[in-house]
Amino acid sequence: MEQASQAIHDFNGTGLSILEIGHRTAHFQSVMDEAISAVKQLMQIGENHDVLFLHGGATTQFMEVPMNLLDEQATAAYHVNGIWGKKAATEAALFGKVNVVADSSDRNNTYIQKDFSISEDASYLHITSNNTVEGTQWHHFPQTNVPLVADMSSDIFCRPADYNRFALIYAGAQKNMGAAGVNMVVVRKDVLGKVKRRLPTIMDYQKHIAAGSLINTPPVFAVYVSMLTLRWIIQEGGLTEMGKRNEAKAGLLYHTIDSLPIFKSTVEKEDRSLMNAVFFLTDPSLETAFLDECKKEGMVGVKGYRTVGGLRVSMYNALPLSSVEAICSLMQDFARRKG
Amino acid sequence: MEQASQAIHDFNGTGLSILEIGHRTAHFQSVMDEAISAVKQLMQIGENHDVLFLHGGATTQFMEVPMNLLDEQATAAYHVNGIWGKKAATEAALFGKVNVVADSSDRNNTYIQKDFSISEDASYLHITSNNTVEGTQWHHFPQTNVPLVADMSSDIFCRPADYNRFALIYAGAQKNMGAAGVNMVVVRKDVLGKVKRRLPTIMDYQKHIAAGSLINTPPVFAVYVSMLTLRWIIQEGGLTEMGKRNEAKAGLLYHTIDSLPIFKSTVEKEDRSLMNAVFFLTDPSLETAFLDECKKEGMVGVKGYRTVGGLRVSMYNALPLSSVEAICSLMQDFARRKG
Repeated sequence: MEQASQAIHDFNGTGLSILEIGHRTAHFQSVMDEAISAVKQLMQIGENHDVLFLHGGATTQFMEVPMNLLDEQATAAYHVNGIWGKKAATEAALFGKVNVVADSSDRNNTYIQKDFSISEDASYLHITSNNTVEGTQWHHFPQTNVPLVADMSSDIFCRPADYNRFALIYAGAQKNMGAAGVNMVVVRKDVLGKVKRRLPTIMDYQKHIAAGSLINTPPVFAVYVSMLTLRWIIQEGGLTEMGKRNEAKAGLLYHTIDSLPIFKSTVEKEDRSLMNAVFFLTDPSLETAFLDECKKEGMVGVKGYRTVGGLRVSMYNALPLSSVEAICSLMQDFARRKG
Repeated sequence: MEQASQAIHDFNGTGLSILEIGHRTAHFQSVMDEAISAVKQLMQIGENHDVLFLHGGATTQFMEVPMNLLDEQATAAYHVNGIWGKKAATEAALFGKVNVVADSSDRNNTYIQKDFSISEDASYLHITSNNTVEGTQWHHFPQTNVPLVADMSSDIFCRPADYNRFALIYAGAQKNMGAAGVNMVVVRKDVLGKVKRRLPTIMDYQKHIAAGSLINTPPVFAVYVSMLTLRWIIQEGGLTEMGKRNEAKAGLLYHTIDSLPIFKSTVEKEDRSLMNAVFFLTDPSLETAFLDECKKEGMVGVKGYRTVGGLRVSMYNALPLSSVEAICSLMQDFARRKG
């Protein structure tokens, strides 16, 4: 935050603000280069993948992915375990055929459906790695022979994994990577250039690769904030360290929920999200009182998503363990008084 | 700049950074509301128009405009007087038929072609109001019976005009409005909803209007910087005052160019841009020496665009008259010594 704020006055001693610096200058190129190489280093991505920073958020990728990968007569497999996956599938259906291969709405999306099969000729399988609203997360990515595509908007850089297995990963930056207004895309070159349709320039991954994400003026400040965040992740110890911290935070919170009968989690234990814990008060009439106490302690955003209700605690990379300890202690205290 | 920088630490006394504030909070809604109402006030836009703030830059609008307004079998008229208009026409051709009704490449795009006709059944006429690379600008917008669409990325808010005449105006924010990463769109509702194709959610102006530009997480910080800039324009006296200042700056610079034989402008006088003055040294061998002197005085970005060469001085709203006076004084001094 301090560095982002400082760069608005004077970016790296240039005397210019990051808001006015030309995107074709060596100054900005070094920001873009560092952001790209940090992603490659953190995800241990090989030469076959490229890293892009593009305008927009995940909703932009909901259309950009099928536009680039799905022909009109071809079929893409969509794994839908929550509202974001559903939205992604809906947008893809504008470009080709969509086969929803899994759907966990039978149990209110409280689990990740792992029992599904994909046609061999599917153009790709799309998954949502973490469901912010429902509080579920993939902990072992599916094995498949078709190109694997993931929306990792809400859990990118939260842990180590074999990211080279993915044909394409995309993530809006605002959760674990920086400020809203930029998308990161990691794409394996060999899946591109296969669709018949002609692509608008700004939607064409191949053109973005050729231009080094500089087809047009990029969201300069948002890329800069992402670069600072990526630099911070590396300094802190990379994805191994992020994974440890996230396990510790989520471990403590879920342990607290499970040990206090006043709270309950309806999410399948093996699918619980490291990023978003969704849970309820066993007696719903206590919810308002609990939320009021959270607010008094300065804990905002604990209310669950409007379609799910209950409570939600988000534990993105930037949240320190001490904040989780604080809410767990409040939960214990509340349970003693009301339980 | 000061306020933008401050908001990264503490946005309006909330204790939260503008980078972490929720886009569905009252805090951000007030930013969006003020930005929208400032645009309406400055442009004196009536009830038939809506104002949107969307992800991306003008290149995104090059596809979004025809996607929303041009059916596959219909024809749009594109007025091409420079590289940006040409790019816009190229993208539109992916969605329908494009009729390039004017083209000033016969004289190297040094003028605005005003002698052209449009078929009555054209879906719209697209113009680029200011050509940054070539240094030309429309000073009297064309009269037409078809919906008028303008890319005003590089001269938005530079002067008063009858903006209600336009069916759609778009502008990437980074020149006169704020930071890169957000697009402003002013659209008259009655031109929407007429194309047959199904639109991806993130490209659908009608859905953006219905959602108040909040279909997905908007580029929060870029919208905030735009709002601050719009507030500043209003405080300074609105578009009338901006117009006066821009006339004064451009007047001085063009007068200096015309009065010194060592410099020459090839742009048609009546079409000269208030925003970007493109000119040359009559003896091109002096160019490097002149650019070196500019650099020594801290004047950066005076080199012309690579396809045009020569010199270019950009005088966006934020540039004070004193900066133009400084370069004019350098030009006079240079002319005395080398002329």
